Amino acid sequence: MHTLTIAGKTYGSRLLVGTGKYKDFAQTKAAIDASGAEIVTVAIRRTNIGQNANEPSLLDVLPPSEYTYLPNTAGCYTAEDAVRTLRLARELLDGHKLVKLEVLGDPHTLYPNVIETISAAKTLIKEGFDVMVYTSDDPIIAKQLEDIGCCAVMPLASLIGSGMGILNPWNLQIIIDTLNVPVLVDAGVGTASDAAIAMELGCDGILMNTAIAGAQDPVLMASAMKKAVQAGREAFLAGRMPKKLYSASPSSPTTGLISK
Amino acid sequence: MHTLTIAGKTYGSRLLVGTGKYKDFAQTKAAIDASGAEIVTVAIRRTNIGQNANEPSLLDVLPPSEYTYLPNTAGCYTAEDAVRTLRLARELLDGHKLVKLEVLGDPHTLYPNVIETISAAKTLIKEGFDVMVYTSDDPIIAKQLEDIGCCAVMPLASLIGSGMGILNPWNLQIIIDTLNVPVLVDAGVGTASDAAIAMELGCDGILMNTAIAGAQDPVLMASAMKKAVQAGREAFLAGRMPKKLYSASPSSPTTGLISK
Amino acid sequence: MHTLTIAGKTYGSRLLVGTGKYKDFAQTKAAIDASGAEIVTVAIRRTNIGQNANEPSLLDVLPPSEYTYLPNTAGCYTAEDAVRTLRLARELLDGHKLVKLEVLGDPHTLYPNVIETISAAKTLIKEGFDVMVYTSDDPIIAKQLEDIGCCAVMPLASLIGSGMGILNPWNLQIIIDTLNVPVLVDAGVGTASDAAIAMELGCDGILMNTAIAGAQDPVLMASAMKKAVQAGREAFLAGRMPKKLYSASPSSPTTGLISK
Amino acid sequence: MHTLTIAGKTYGSRLLVGTGKYKDFAQTKAAIDASGAEIVTVAIRRTNIGQNANEPSLLDVLPPSEYTYLPNTAGCYTAEDAVRTLRLARELLDGHKLVKLEVLGDPHTLYPNVIETISAAKTLIKEGFDVMVYTSDDPIIAKQLEDIGCCAVMPLASLIGSGMGILNPWNLQIIIDTLNVPVLVDAGVGTASDAAIAMELGCDGILMNTAIAGAQDPVLMASAMKKAVQAGREAFLAGRMPKKLYSASPSSPTTGLISK
Repeated sequence: MHTLTIAGKTYGSRLLVGTGKYKDFAQTKAAIDASGAEIVTVAIRRTNIGQNANEPSLLDVLPPSEYTYLPNTAGCYTAEDAVRTLRLARELLDGHKLVKLEVLGDPHTLYPNVIETISAAKTLIKEGFDVMVYTSDDPIIAKQLEDIGCCAVMPLASLIGSGMGILNPWNLQIIIDTLNVPVLVDAGVGTASDAAIAMELGCDGILMNTAIAGAQDPVLMASAMKKAVQAGREAFLAGRMPKKLYSASPSSPTTGLISK
Repeated sequence: MHTLTIAGKTYGSRLLVGTGKYKDFAQTKAAIDASGAEIVTVAIRRTNIGQNANEPSLLDVLPPSEYTYLPNTAGCYTAEDAVRTLRLARELLDGHKLVKLEVLGDPHTLYPNVIETISAAKTLIKEGFDVMVYTSDDPIIAKQLEDIGCCAVMPLASLIGSGMGILNPWNLQIIIDTLNVPVLVDAGVGTASDAAIAMELGCDGILMNTAIAGAQDPVLMASAMKKAVQAGREAFLAGRMPKKLYSASPSSPTTGLISK
Repeated sequence: MHTLTIAGKTYGSRLLVGTGKYKDFAQTKAAIDASGAEIVTVAIRRTNIGQNANEPSLLDVLPPSEYTYLPNTAGCYTAEDAVRTLRLARELLDGHKLVKLEVLGDPHTLYPNVIETISAAKTLIKEGFDVMVYTSDDPIIAKQLEDIGCCAVMPLASLIGSGMGILNPWNLQIIIDTLNVPVLVDAGVGTASDAAIAMELGCDGILMNTAIAGAQDPVLMASAMKKAVQAGREAFLAGRMPKKLYSASPSSPTTGLISK
Repeated sequence: MHTLTIAGKTYGSRLLVGTGKYKDFAQTKAAIDASGAEIVTVAIRRTNIGQNANEPSLLDVLPPSEYTYLPNTAGCYTAEDAVRTLRLARELLDGHKLVKLEVLGDPHTLYPNVIETISAAKTLIKEGFDVMVYTSDDPIIAKQLEDIGCCAVMPLASLIGSGMGILNPWNLQIIIDTLNVPVLVDAGVGTASDAAIAMELGCDGILMNTAIAGAQDPVLMASAMKKAVQAGREAFLAGRMPKKLYSASPSSPTTGLISK
């Protein structure tokens, strides 16, 4: 019921987390442990996973034997750049195939460039990568990304690093209803209730970074997010009560009173 | 950090639940166990806790030694009726003092009648009850209820049995900021994220019934609510990231790239 | 269709405006002219309408022969104070009976004190005033105010001077559906769309001050508000299209194409 | 101040309307007159503007000498189809250059296909058309459409025919702030306040059809929309008051009271 399968591998946690923006590697590890995440994203262009041999490596803190690494293309603005970055990641991680593709439109808003994203996805899939893809909440583009073979589609809730929450749940709903591959919300979650809302919509998982790393107490927020994702998932599966402005038959019906 | 003290007694759970609207007592018990609630409300006028000697009693299912009973006045529309109901409860529960007062304005909307509520609260406090009081989200009335001695103030999120969630978080925020006694959201929570939002506002706890009992799978929803309340509380304490429309420095800064 | 009747007098405009917070009386007049308002509120405790014989009087700028004055009790925190203020107004305005009652709960939030409000309303009605009453969005209190004889009930949209718009349209809807006297939204409107939303809910009129006086160009905003109130009223009467997430039959049906 | 210039021609009205979905041509004309619109869209594939010589033609009801026709590609799902449709329109309308391009993604949601849209826009601009283009609220795509030479960009508020209003004002805001050509909201407006909100965001105009034609009284709703667009525009230009949860200095300050 609660497991999530991506590219043929099954995970117990539906919360995926980033590894950037922490004070130090110790805090990174403590927060990720508290989150219960099994998949962790790594910004290849700014995190050392062996490129710089003499510096501390994330691999020592989060051993790849225990975590599934998800190299990403943060900071890439063209398909070419993104593809090159993930080829490097594959090399650094001994042939690792599962990657997160993101191609951004501009450095100001960090909104995705969906056209470059589709182009990069095609190339990467041809080269044998398992591509989890970050995209806008455009349901037609999301469907195309599934059709070209992405193993998971990850629409934004709101802009990267904004913490604005789910700005357009209706588009997310259409994407969730339309796609067959896992749909994970990526970017925009700011606090626990945002994560719960996303899961209640029926999405398969959530990827976040700033919401945890940018909290005043990242480790406690990681714990909150773990519970919020589970709560939202369970609420989705449990089938919520109907909404109604008035309750005709509330916890206080006028019939059925015990006579005294 | 996570404990809640009401009328001098400390609880580990911040989720309070009702006992009505379940299929049978077995489901009531299973859901309440899953919720982790330690305080359970009982509608004295419609639940048997000994009034009807030959019928099954809730006391057998949820032993008062394990749960704190919170008799309520569901179905009362006047101060007089409410006071009479709680005197009966005290008698049935061997001098039990902790009660939940609610006086409703009309059977259609079930909106509270704050004037009758204040009147009943005064009488009950004079008679030695510890009064947890259901009210609207009017911050002036909430403060008056604290001033006359209520041990907890419980504003609505939305109408009883509506599941509409938090309609006016701004009023709740004012109440939370203004009062010194515990503030618990009562009524209106419909799903897990609603509970998380209420806790993120800084309220001290949540009381719900229909959101659990009215779900398609009440026991699973009870588990969701338990986690959502904890998630929201932790997120509140962790201090969320700031919201901003654009991120100047997202998980993808253009500075600090590792050179390759 | 578009006229509004209050206390037996009919008005062509559904927009009522305050006279405070303007740069000078000339701006007051220009903005009020642009708003098309026929009823103007006056804060008796801070606007000169004859109390100070040697100072400029609002009566010279807005002649009572052309505008219906609505003296209000801004700045009053008790029933006694409010009643005293309106008696003074009646004296200053030669027996004028139509008044706006507001009794506030505290100087910080300016939330109404509904209990003092009810008390003052009773006294004023007994003394022959026609009482338009400012109140919270509590539908039970709103109904009581109608029952004791107020000629119009004016719930807040949000706090006075906040410009937050309609925080709880559901409560307003209940009030509009329940009451027989005119319901006017008073306080909280911040911009034109807020006014349109209030009118689309079916309320009978709107009273505002800061939204106009506090705009960068008060006269232009007054014109905007005039049109917004009319637009909202007409949209309410016209009966809006149904909302639906998808359109089955949009402006682009796949049937009925003209063959070429 | 209030004029709108598109492709070198200046209009007094910022409201553009569709001509479909009315009961008959008489209602079409009455509603369009009430709306004050000067630009009217025509679905070439389903409205007779001369294709069927023996049937009533829209040209007789809305003479092209009085209205600017905006032929659109409603019902087209590929660039090729859209281009072919607009070539036909140019022929039917004697070399008319101003067109509205829309290419939809699927017949269920009617969400735009932005990739086909870009492709069609390139072709049309090369062929000398003045292209007003319907698109999603993706700011990167919107900017590309401007860059390739579209004379106006028209993002959706919500899905065609949905009447859901402005689902994501934040994206619209980014588009408005980024583009230099006129930005008009197209699709999704359901009632007058939606139109006012769009204009208050700073967009240059609004195109709608169902909100008017689908109202119970289309002519009255057309009048409402005319006023709402003007109200929203004026409110935008007037510069609204700041929002604040509490007012420190409301219409009821405690200082500056006139002494009595």
